[in-house]
Amino acid sequence: MMNTQLTIVSMIERAEKYFSKKEVISRTHRGVHHFTYQEIGKRTRSLASALEKLGVKKGDRVGTLAWNHHRHLEAYFAIPAMGAVLHTINIRLSAEHLRYIINHAEDEVLLIDIDLLPLIENIKDELTTVKAFIVMSDEAEVPDSSLQPLYSYEALLAEGDENFQFATDIVEEDAAGMCYTSATTGKPKGVVYSHRGIVLHSMALSMADSAALSESDIAMPVVPMFHVNAWGVPFAATWLGTTQVLPGPMMTPKVIAELIETYQVTITAGVPTIWLGLLHELEKGNYNMKSLRAILCGGSAAPKGMIRAFESDFGIPFIHAYGMTETTPLVTLARLKSYQTNLPEEDRLNIRATQGLVVPGLEVKVINENGEVKPDGKEMGELLVRGPWIADEYYRDERSKEAFQDGWLYTGDVVTIDEEGNINMIDRTKDLIKSGGEWISSVDLENALMAHEAIFEAAIVSIPDPKWQERPVACVVLKEGKTLSEEEVLAFLKPQFAKWWLPDKVIFMDEIPKTSVGKFLKRALRDKVRENN
Amino acid sequence: MMNTQLTIVSMIERAEKYFSKKEVISRTHRGVHHFTYQEIGKRTRSLASALEKLGVKKGDRVGTLAWNHHRHLEAYFAIPAMGAVLHTINIRLSAEHLRYIINHAEDEVLLIDIDLLPLIENIKDELTTVKAFIVMSDEAEVPDSSLQPLYSYEALLAEGDENFQFATDIVEEDAAGMCYTSATTGKPKGVVYSHRGIVLHSMALSMADSAALSESDIAMPVVPMFHVNAWGVPFAATWLGTTQVLPGPMMTPKVIAELIETYQVTITAGVPTIWLGLLHELEKGNYNMKSLRAILCGGSAAPKGMIRAFESDFGIPFIHAYGMTETTPLVTLARLKSYQTNLPEEDRLNIRATQGLVVPGLEVKVINENGEVKPDGKEMGELLVRGPWIADEYYRDERSKEAFQDGWLYTGDVVTIDEEGNINMIDRTKDLIKSGGEWISSVDLENALMAHEAIFEAAIVSIPDPKWQERPVACVVLKEGKTLSEEEVLAFLKPQFAKWWLPDKVIFMDEIPKTSVGKFLKRALRDKVRENN
Repeated sequence: MMNTQLTIVSMIERAEKYFSKKEVISRTHRGVHHFTYQEIGKRTRSLASALEKLGVKKGDRVGTLAWNHHRHLEAYFAIPAMGAVLHTINIRLSAEHLRYIINHAEDEVLLIDIDLLPLIENIKDELTTVKAFIVMSDEAEVPDSSLQPLYSYEALLAEGDENFQFATDIVEEDAAGMCYTSATTGKPKGVVYSHRGIVLHSMALSMADSAALSESDIAMPVVPMFHVNAWGVPFAATWLGTTQVLPGPMMTPKVIAELIETYQVTITAGVPTIWLGLLHELEKGNYNMKSLRAILCGGSAAPKGMIRAFESDFGIPFIHAYGMTETTPLVTLARLKSYQTNLPEEDRLNIRATQGLVVPGLEVKVINENGEVKPDGKEMGELLVRGPWIADEYYRDERSKEAFQDGWLYTGDVVTIDEEGNINMIDRTKDLIKSGGEWISSVDLENALMAHEAIFEAAIVSIPDPKWQERPVACVVLKEGKTLSEEEVLAFLKPQFAKWWLPDKVIFMDEIPKTSVGKFLKRALRDKVRENN
Repeated sequence: MMNTQLTIVSMIERAEKYFSKKEVISRTHRGVHHFTYQEIGKRTRSLASALEKLGVKKGDRVGTLAWNHHRHLEAYFAIPAMGAVLHTINIRLSAEHLRYIINHAEDEVLLIDIDLLPLIENIKDELTTVKAFIVMSDEAEVPDSSLQPLYSYEALLAEGDENFQFATDIVEEDAAGMCYTSATTGKPKGVVYSHRGIVLHSMALSMADSAALSESDIAMPVVPMFHVNAWGVPFAATWLGTTQVLPGPMMTPKVIAELIETYQVTITAGVPTIWLGLLHELEKGNYNMKSLRAILCGGSAAPKGMIRAFESDFGIPFIHAYGMTETTPLVTLARLKSYQTNLPEEDRLNIRATQGLVVPGLEVKVINENGEVKPDGKEMGELLVRGPWIADEYYRDERSKEAFQDGWLYTGDVVTIDEEGNINMIDRTKDLIKSGGEWISSVDLENALMAHEAIFEAAIVSIPDPKWQERPVACVVLKEGKTLSEEEVLAFLKPQFAKWWLPDKVIFMDEIPKTSVGKFLKRALRDKVRENN
């Protein structure tokens, strides 16, 4: 067979050639813009030519600090298609971590949204490799800034070559992108995505038994484009000629609901906290969500009650998925097998609330100290993953050898696997609570709490205990206008769990601290709770 | 990213692990059998162990002469998964060609359906490399035969190791299969399929915008498993855990209709002549075809009238596709883009009757003597294809250099391409009729004729003409009980074509001679017509 390389170049070229009329709808700080893929193609080529003029060469890293919008999408293709490496930078990192990853990746150029300039202005004197800054905004002027040299994105594009020829010497193993993931301790760890990995991941996203992404979809990635390539949606959607709605900065639940309604979004993707917010908004407002054929949810385990609420109360199909920065990210996805579709509703919901089955193309294995666990949905072990879109190391990082062993990625997630192959997330290894020699799953308790009609969100953390080693404490945020006592919370949990699983204490708070990508920040919460108890 | 190899091993292992309860329904000479994927997995491993005992090593070719049934499916996986090469042999080839390809491929072992033994008994003394024969039937006994040594498939399996470990040293570029394609002149040409090509092709078949093959399908490949891997359906379907219906020997239209109805087949695949036969059967009989979500049709251009009849008269969605032995085979597929779904019915049908758009992962180009043709749906040129599941040579064959040039496969098909990217087949280069310096498309005339309610099938061939160089002649087969005169046929064509396109003559016959895979055998027909005129 021909040794045709799987590269991102062919993905953008397909959109230009065959879907030139289809649209990317982009919400920026100034308003909503419509671009055809023909226009996106020309602008992408212009951007690549401008970067080349600025000295970007094959293999160079180019960083982006940006929301989900068309300029970020152009960077998604221009940078890898010229043979350089798209380094999407998490804008919610601390100044210290921003400095670290930009220097560690050795970014040559940074593309920065106008409202995010201060993030880099603060640390500009500590950046060791950046030679040029490009500000992304709807205007062609350069704002006042201490960053030098600073170019306007639109001015560069206006002078760029819209017929720029993409690289023809890319090998599929070449780096196309990179993204840093927060570590439990220490600096963020870099993951490099190859062209091959991204193309194969795009195929996986488009398979009928996976997310079935299609030309006929109107796809809105709510998950940030600075986080694992917005789960690969912008890559696959462009390739397929899918209409994209890029929701831009300051995505409140109201903005999300309005965009879905206005643009008849069919599929959207994001973390559970986003959907918890949307659910709350839908309960208050009066929106038409009929266009939605799927909400793709991952990043952390979604409470079963939330899945039920979306499906039963609003008729919105909810697809629970699992992945991580190291896995591009799609690993598993919860769909019913054909012979499960006639099960009673509660049984179906129980399957749909698992992380689901590994997608074709990858392999998973669950191990504990006794070897591979029994596929009985009960025995717990750590989830291991391998396949062509799984990282095999952290970028120039000593910590690689902990996570990557014998050709497998050790995810650090404790799971069970049932006889159907469904993975069920018990906890992060480090978030499991060890009480009296037995494990308590914080995720199970959280999901039970979040099924209570008065509870908006809840997190369980451990406090040290002289007798039991660790004991669980519940942190609860109530819905607006609702009240609940500690006794009521515990009484609600009591029939559902063994007595020794029940939290020792319930702490009511205004908000659960979250990570930069919307997951519960267990570490900060634990510190806060332990400080006050 | 991990350098995980794309191999067929992981495809069968996925079926064993996660779809152990799903079924393969297999029609043999004796009846219909049901096997779970767990059973298929064990039998596949037993077969691999038996072949290993017979001396089959990595890289060795193992030939099959078989209909579509579970034993053939087991060979599809056992042979490549042990690192050997599955050589599917077209049972309809002449003795001379059978001898040639078995010797040319250097097959070590042949697996032969019991009713096909005479094909090989006839040529056994001329086979230079075959060391063992295996007869496939429902019995464990070996029938009387001049083939030596001859083993019983079921007896070998009974002694085999159902826990046999598949090869772990397969590299994705390794040969997994091969298939010979008829040449216009000379010997058949061999095409080798790599593991990588078959895995990527399986992903392409499963993409939502392609055939969307899914676990929830009940897939019946009518296209023979000895012809381009039954278009890859058995590979993809096993990987996804799809229920398969393998229709076995002597597939009459009645058998096909009954299998669809009985097993609630959702997707089936085959050449136009098969569907013409089915259409005829549906018109006569009283079948429930409601389960069918798609008929996949390729191999040669389907008449628009047939597509219309399936969809309008029987409500059966028809997907027109294009490919060839050299392309694994899926290249293009005709589906409406989202913005075309509201076009008037006739416009939609016109799009659906083209060969459609290139699937993601491949590239096409149409060239003539002036370079790339205009994408106007009018300018004709030869179709070129490239991509990771396209052959880059014929196996040990001097003729490779004609078809493979500058990294492209020259298909020999004359097509147009429109502004949406849809390929429209005009003719095989060699079947175009040159009259007075202008081209006449035999395919266009055939499709027009086959839209006539009294015509069952029709083929156009050229006869030499002293003045015009070549002139078209129509060969027409009427439906049972219908009558039609030459004048009526020409009067029917007249309003649809320029005067000089109209055939000089209409010849009524009982049957159009067909190739081994059900395409019109233009060469034989041309010889016959020229002989008698």
